[in-house]
Amino acid sequence: MPTEQETTTLASRLEDLLHGDDVSEAVELLASIHPADQADLYIHLDPEARVALLALLSSDGLAQLLGHLDEDLRQEMVDGMPRAALAPVLDRAESDIAVDILRLLPPAEAARVLSNMSTAPQITPLLGHADESAGGLMTRGYVALHKEMTVAQAMTFLRLSRPLAEEAYYLYVLDADNRLQGVVNLRQLIVSNPQTRIEDVMTADVIAVTAGTDQEEVARLLQHYRLRALPVTDENRVLSGIITADDVIDVITEEATEDMYRLAGLDVEASVLSPVKRSLRRRVPWLVVNLMTAFISALTVSAFESTISQVALLAAFMPVIAGHGGNTGTQVSTLVVRGIALGEVTSRDAARIVGKEVAFGLVHGVIVGSLTAVLALILSGNLWLAGVVFGAMIGNVMVAGIFGAIIPLGLRAIKMDPALASAIWLTTFTDVVGFLMLLGAGALLVSKLA
Amino acid sequence: MPTEQETTTLASRLEDLLHGDDVSEAVELLASIHPADQADLYIHLDPEARVALLALLSSDGLAQLLGHLDEDLRQEMVDGMPRAALAPVLDRAESDIAVDILRLLPPAEAARVLSNMSTAPQITPLLGHADESAGGLMTRGYVALHKEMTVAQAMTFLRLSRPLAEEAYYLYVLDADNRLQGVVNLRQLIVSNPQTRIEDVMTADVIAVTAGTDQEEVARLLQHYRLRALPVTDENRVLSGIITADDVIDVITEEATEDMYRLAGLDVEASVLSPVKRSLRRRVPWLVVNLMTAFISALTVSAFESTISQVALLAAFMPVIAGHGGNTGTQVSTLVVRGIALGEVTSRDAARIVGKEVAFGLVHGVIVGSLTAVLALILSGNLWLAGVVFGAMIGNVMVAGIFGAIIPLGLRAIKMDPALASAIWLTTFTDVVGFLMLLGAGALLVSKLA
Repeated sequence: MPTEQETTTLASRLEDLLHGDDVSEAVELLASIHPADQADLYIHLDPEARVALLALLSSDGLAQLLGHLDEDLRQEMVDGMPRAALAPVLDRAESDIAVDILRLLPPAEAARVLSNMSTAPQITPLLGHADESAGGLMTRGYVALHKEMTVAQAMTFLRLSRPLAEEAYYLYVLDADNRLQGVVNLRQLIVSNPQTRIEDVMTADVIAVTAGTDQEEVARLLQHYRLRALPVTDENRVLSGIITADDVIDVITEEATEDMYRLAGLDVEASVLSPVKRSLRRRVPWLVVNLMTAFISALTVSAFESTISQVALLAAFMPVIAGHGGNTGTQVSTLVVRGIALGEVTSRDAARIVGKEVAFGLVHGVIVGSLTAVLALILSGNLWLAGVVFGAMIGNVMVAGIFGAIIPLGLRAIKMDPALASAIWLTTFTDVVGFLMLLGAGALLVSKLA
Repeated sequence: MPTEQETTTLASRLEDLLHGDDVSEAVELLASIHPADQADLYIHLDPEARVALLALLSSDGLAQLLGHLDEDLRQEMVDGMPRAALAPVLDRAESDIAVDILRLLPPAEAARVLSNMSTAPQITPLLGHADESAGGLMTRGYVALHKEMTVAQAMTFLRLSRPLAEEAYYLYVLDADNRLQGVVNLRQLIVSNPQTRIEDVMTADVIAVTAGTDQEEVARLLQHYRLRALPVTDENRVLSGIITADDVIDVITEEATEDMYRLAGLDVEASVLSPVKRSLRRRVPWLVVNLMTAFISALTVSAFESTISQVALLAAFMPVIAGHGGNTGTQVSTLVVRGIALGEVTSRDAARIVGKEVAFGLVHGVIVGSLTAVLALILSGNLWLAGVVFGAMIGNVMVAGIFGAIIPLGLRAIKMDPALASAIWLTTFTDVVGFLMLLGAGALLVSKLA
């Protein structure tokens, strides 16, 4: 994998060649670069060079390049290509990628492109599935054998049909109604007696999903059973496609990013590299919502204005108690959100987790409450103040732990994304509870503290 | 994949069978369960039933079960087995798993087990590699062909050597000195003329790594080039093993968890389900460190005690300004940490990112500063206070954005984990800066505010 530095150097060399007259040198250079790296180069080229590059690639080359570009660049590349050129390219692409690209077009144009594609019969049924479902991930590129074939017939069939390498890892065995009966791999064929029937060689228990299965579930199955591909069937177990491990790697990466961003109150599409304007549009709305929740904290504190003016030192402990509650809650909700994503935590564990957080909070609260009380005693010499700080800290840490667990588990129970239990909401909550405990106790005992 | 409910039901049924007399029924039940699901069941069994289950499984069955257990359970399972029984089990396991398990034993015991293993010559060289490197991930289970073989000879060789299905996806082509020359797949063999030499069929440009390559880099390569396996060579390009896509799925999941936990200031081994005592040991040290950093905030605020007692309303804006800075900084550092992990952000982007965050911070700061100033005006009717709040908000948001980007990029530049830029440190920093700006300006203008 070339470094960022090498990519930039190569990009400017390629750009020079593409702007120049010597096309053959550019073609030669391109041929020496893996499509995945071509995609990285493409990002760095100026618009004119991009168009020139597309003109130099074969349909095969374009299909492979498309497979490695992200959605924004695919859109741009497709927009820059004559529509008539698109059909042969999509014929060469893996079918899940062809479908993704047809989805980028207005329906009428997609239909026109599709009508010129020789693979249309395989592609059309895929268009009906949601992007984030098994149906949206699957490809039609699989090899199916009939269970009554002999091993020798199967080998002849493979020799004639010349499947792509990626498609031939598992060979799926169907009955006369195209229902999935089993799976064999090439190695089983090679080592078996040529006259054996396929159904006597195959493994009969095949793990399969239906097209509506969520992509997270697909990823979990593949990971759980350590599979390299997963067949997709309809409700009658008729085989409709397969999902390969490399597509699932992308899903796992995407889902982890999504959870991380949600926990930080970020839009899933946010990126630190996107232009300022787009960043403002994507990040500011959430931040303003967050500000509004912080106003609740401000109003809570302002209700205790007279207490604070009498015992100003209380203000010094506001960030300690609120902040520590916030961090405790964030830790618990991060653990729960990730545990749910990894399939380790289910709603049945709720009681156990909350019980555990209560015990944890008591011990933890006494430790941090005592330390904070000592600081209060040093700063004020007032035992009452130390007591108020101690109590508020234990209380807030307990509440933070319990709600840090309950909120994502509750969201999960009502079928919402647990990661929406973002730090922003939880922190406001622990702020308000912390302030109420600290300043409320302070107000009650103000005569002892002042 | 059975639900949690089904697993519990099945576990108690299996437990009953294992405690009873009818062993054959337990064996039959076990045989119908996938090893991945057996591993889930194992977690739910009582210690006695676990021992009984291990006694019922063949070496093959034990090897497969071990492959699906996590490290804690592997340790327990290995501890519960007679050492003499271990060698044949590890002989059956995939070599990367055998190595992981040998690493769990004291060196002298590992050597004794190894001396009884028939696969010792393949396993011993793997023991020298770090767990999180390509060498620690790789398996010796690959198929190597000589470049001078004909296709027909290669097929005969495969028929006789009967490789495992997982091993036969890519076939690596070596020269007389075992140096990696190319790769072919079974499908290429099947469709080629039997008399062709392998070197004329193979793909010559093979992407490979050395044993010392970090597992994150391995994952990135596999994902970037969409490979199903990656060969590992020494510095002379002699093939030493391969890494398969399913092992990389685990690495990607692990690394994402690690980043998420570090961002929340959590120990990588923490889990919401672990016993209270272990949780206390793993989470409390970090939380106490966090508390100490919060004490810096408390001392900052206490320095302004007299200002606060004169203008108590300033305390109401402390959580707004500090909290909003904290959230802004957390968002930016989450984006940068994830961008680095995905290979989208490098240190060369630093200047661009910081420049962008300055522009973002100005616009964002003016928006949220104005909103907060309006609240200040409503609560106090004092324009000076509104001005102080406005200025402190802009300043803190800018600082938070810049440092939220610089800290992870800087950690990366000095080869440390960018995710150590956890919310805990950043939040303390934004707290202190926010308080200094708000209360400092308040102290200077106290006569206008009171």
